Amino acid sequence: MQNNLVVERLKSQIAFIAEVDKIKHIVRMNYLSDGSRRENDAEHSWHLALMAVLLAEHANEPNLDVSKAVKMVLIHDVVEIDAGDTYAYDAKGMEDQAEREQKAADRIFAILPEDQAKEFRAIWDEFEERKTPEAKYAAALDRLHPMLLNFLSGGKSWIDNGITQEMARNRNKHAAEGSETLWNFAEHLIKESGENGYLK
Amino acid sequence: MQNNLVVERLKSQIAFIAEVDKIKHIVRMNYLSDGSRRENDAEHSWHLALMAVLLAEHANEPNLDVSKAVKMVLIHDVVEIDAGDTYAYDAKGMEDQAEREQKAADRIFAILPEDQAKEFRAIWDEFEERKTPEAKYAAALDRLHPMLLNFLSGGKSWIDNGITQEMARNRNKHAAEGSETLWNFAEHLIKESGENGYLK
Repeated sequence: MQNNLVVERLKSQIAFIAEVDKIKHIVRMNYLSDGSRRENDAEHSWHLALMAVLLAEHANEPNLDVSKAVKMVLIHDVVEIDAGDTYAYDAKGMEDQAEREQKAADRIFAILPEDQAKEFRAIWDEFEERKTPEAKYAAALDRLHPMLLNFLSGGKSWIDNGITQEMARNRNKHAAEGSETLWNFAEHLIKESGENGYLK
Repeated sequence: MQNNLVVERLKSQIAFIAEVDKIKHIVRMNYLSDGSRRENDAEHSWHLALMAVLLAEHANEPNLDVSKAVKMVLIHDVVEIDAGDTYAYDAKGMEDQAEREQKAADRIFAILPEDQAKEFRAIWDEFEERKTPEAKYAAALDRLHPMLLNFLSGGKSWIDNGITQEMARNRNKHAAEGSETLWNFAEHLIKESGENGYLK
């Protein structure tokens, strides 16, 4: 026999797991590497979590808590269930993005049992504030990932949206706060993308 | 200036990250919770990683290494890039599944730098052998997840394939080795699915 507390906790956890299934429908601007279709938030979050594990040696802070960075990237986009995806180069959409996402976080993390609701809301806030080594590293991955897929797909969504090298550099350069090495690599992608006509 | 070793390692890591983008095209038998379309391996792996983090308290082994279980579920399906998805109830497909997947693992993990290739191949082997607490827990999640989505989608892929309660129980009962609590929950899903006509 399981005790009632375990059953109650599990019910809340399963309700959260069922709720966040919806991010599989939230389509991002960038395409998959083969350009066949746009990527969704669940696919993006999986790829980031794997990158967080594989690329930790390149973080500026050598002793960062990788498992916290993994938690961050696994849940960083669940707020888009309510707030939608805001394109990185959409200045108008970004104006009220923070407000819309805070409201979403209030609703969605509260589905979890109270202790986990607090923990994951705090982790999401930490990611958003981008002050700790884990948050800076997670943000660097979140910037590098769409750049890599854009590069591999022949610049498809950059070309669609008339993005320039300067825009890409300005929008993504904070990645250097999390990882100088990964930002160097991203700059190399930007330069080559310029040469290939993927970025204006 | 970065040293050459870092650049070489990063190149291999990025090549692996680019290669595994392909699992976003590998479609599984189960549908998303709203029944709108089938799920792919990247979405499934993201959901499992989040479950691994949220449900660890329900594992039979209270001191298991959650971050290892997360690594397992993040990479457990990359072999399907070469081997394809084998449906859990496809006895014929399962005959040579292990051989096809071993070959795929040989090729795919070798893309990583040597130390990581060894680490992740060992983690994948450990998952497949299902002997350690982490592997048993990861396997329990891998069984529970499609059952939950099947249940939420009104039994869509179970009905399509004529699956019975007994088949579901026999195929998934090893989940109890990783988590009695999660298996109890899964049995409850099976029973209710029988009552609702989702499982014969």
